[in-house]
Amino acid sequence: MIETVAIAGVGLIGSSFALALRRRVGFRGRILGVSRPEYLEKAVAAGIIDEGVSLEEAASTADFLYLSSSITRIIETLGDLDPMARPGLVVTDAGSTKEQIMAKAGGFERAVFVGGHPMAGKESRGCESADPDLFEGRPYFLCYQSESHKSIPAVAEFRAWLDAFGVRVQEIRAEEHDRLVALTSHLAQMASTALAATLDRRLGAEQARRGAGPGLESMLRLAQSGYEGLWEDILATNSGPIASALDFYISELQRLRRAAGDEVADTFTSAGEFARQLRDTGI
Amino acid sequence: MIETVAIAGVGLIGSSFALALRRRVGFRGRILGVSRPEYLEKAVAAGIIDEGVSLEEAASTADFLYLSSSITRIIETLGDLDPMARPGLVVTDAGSTKEQIMAKAGGFERAVFVGGHPMAGKESRGCESADPDLFEGRPYFLCYQSESHKSIPAVAEFRAWLDAFGVRVQEIRAEEHDRLVALTSHLAQMASTALAATLDRRLGAEQARRGAGPGLESMLRLAQSGYEGLWEDILATNSGPIASALDFYISELQRLRRAAGDEVADTFTSAGEFARQLRDTGI
Repeated sequence: MIETVAIAGVGLIGSSFALALRRRVGFRGRILGVSRPEYLEKAVAAGIIDEGVSLEEAASTADFLYLSSSITRIIETLGDLDPMARPGLVVTDAGSTKEQIMAKAGGFERAVFVGGHPMAGKESRGCESADPDLFEGRPYFLCYQSESHKSIPAVAEFRAWLDAFGVRVQEIRAEEHDRLVALTSHLAQMASTALAATLDRRLGAEQARRGAGPGLESMLRLAQSGYEGLWEDILATNSGPIASALDFYISELQRLRRAAGDEVADTFTSAGEFARQLRDTGI
Repeated sequence: MIETVAIAGVGLIGSSFALALRRRVGFRGRILGVSRPEYLEKAVAAGIIDEGVSLEEAASTADFLYLSSSITRIIETLGDLDPMARPGLVVTDAGSTKEQIMAKAGGFERAVFVGGHPMAGKESRGCESADPDLFEGRPYFLCYQSESHKSIPAVAEFRAWLDAFGVRVQEIRAEEHDRLVALTSHLAQMASTALAATLDRRLGAEQARRGAGPGLESMLRLAQSGYEGLWEDILATNSGPIASALDFYISELQRLRRAAGDEVADTFTSAGEFARQLRDTGI
């Protein structure tokens, strides 16, 4: 029975996890936070965590530790964590790439690590934007280091929380996860950023605005995402699969660029059908 | 004073134009429709037009003719129109590309042609989806063949209607229009279609759905657009500027693919700033 939860990184994801735990699970134990003092103060004032503590205190007193800082910071924390962990501490994370994170936690002797990736977010960041329903209906990837971890009571309890959050849990190997999201998430980001860069270079904002409609708006939404601490880390920890995804996309654009009528018609038709299929099954 | 308006093509755009004319301008004259019998019947039943007529009857009796069918059909109609037009008939269109359309109307002797392009639309088509506020806040391009056309009373009256529709009127030369929308609209479509095609080929819908979040959804919205009678015609009548826009985009993706940290950071930062600027000034 998990009685004390610690959340390292009380930004949008960590704070939403805490709120979901209170409101959707009905968790009545203590929720500790680990972060910079000014963030902890805000999170306590907002009623998201009960108290701010050091990582060492969290690792040695909590039953469950949720790592929801940047990927770089998660990897750093995993490097320090095991010696200070209370034996049997269950640790999970919310990093957007999994292979390097799983590798870093590979040698744990005291703590048990389960990799996680909630595919959720919104345009605003920080604990002020926390939302107990943020994860609802979204994919939540889980990477187990060992099948035997699933039957550890605290791991099973975490798994049950995710059901209460209304997420679509997907068990996956780390490498497969990283190749999959390179196409469904990272490539989409690169496509949007490159589109914005093209229009910026060729037209500039004033000219582009003259010809901008809702279709373009939808294509440029991702380009507004932050780089530091987010895409910087994703690109650094998933460079191989992202490069392959970009190569596929560039070939597809080159094919469309050269294609004659019938081939273009086929591409539009099958791409349209694919996009509608994805929409209809509720992404 | 325009007393009789004819609308050739009573789909989403033509029907919305008719509704906007009634509700936002308060037009009390007759509105005729030109289309296939089954479409005319629906448009009369929906109270969008008063009566269906032939193109010949419309051209010889109306004061103002709005061409809102496909680009191919608009070009065809412009080829037949002038000899049957009543002298001084003002004709405009809603085609998404302008150079070939303007060229086709270049030799008019009886009718006066003003090219138009409302950048508006929605996912559903047909007169059932008509909306008097469809054009509100959207760009509406106008291409004049001659400065002198602006002072023709029926042309000035049409121009005043557009103000009542709440559009952002932009006067532009046809070639400049086509180069601009190749980047802001046609390239965005190709980027979305190619992204859907890449995911379809590499993952298929079932796998892609596992890793699909709201960012991808936003990037695949345009890919759902129809090809026949819409993108087929746009690609056929603006192939040069679209090919150039694709070349720019492919180079930008290749640059991102090869770039090291600092250059990627710069691209993300300036692309993000560009996208936010466009959003903030309300596209």
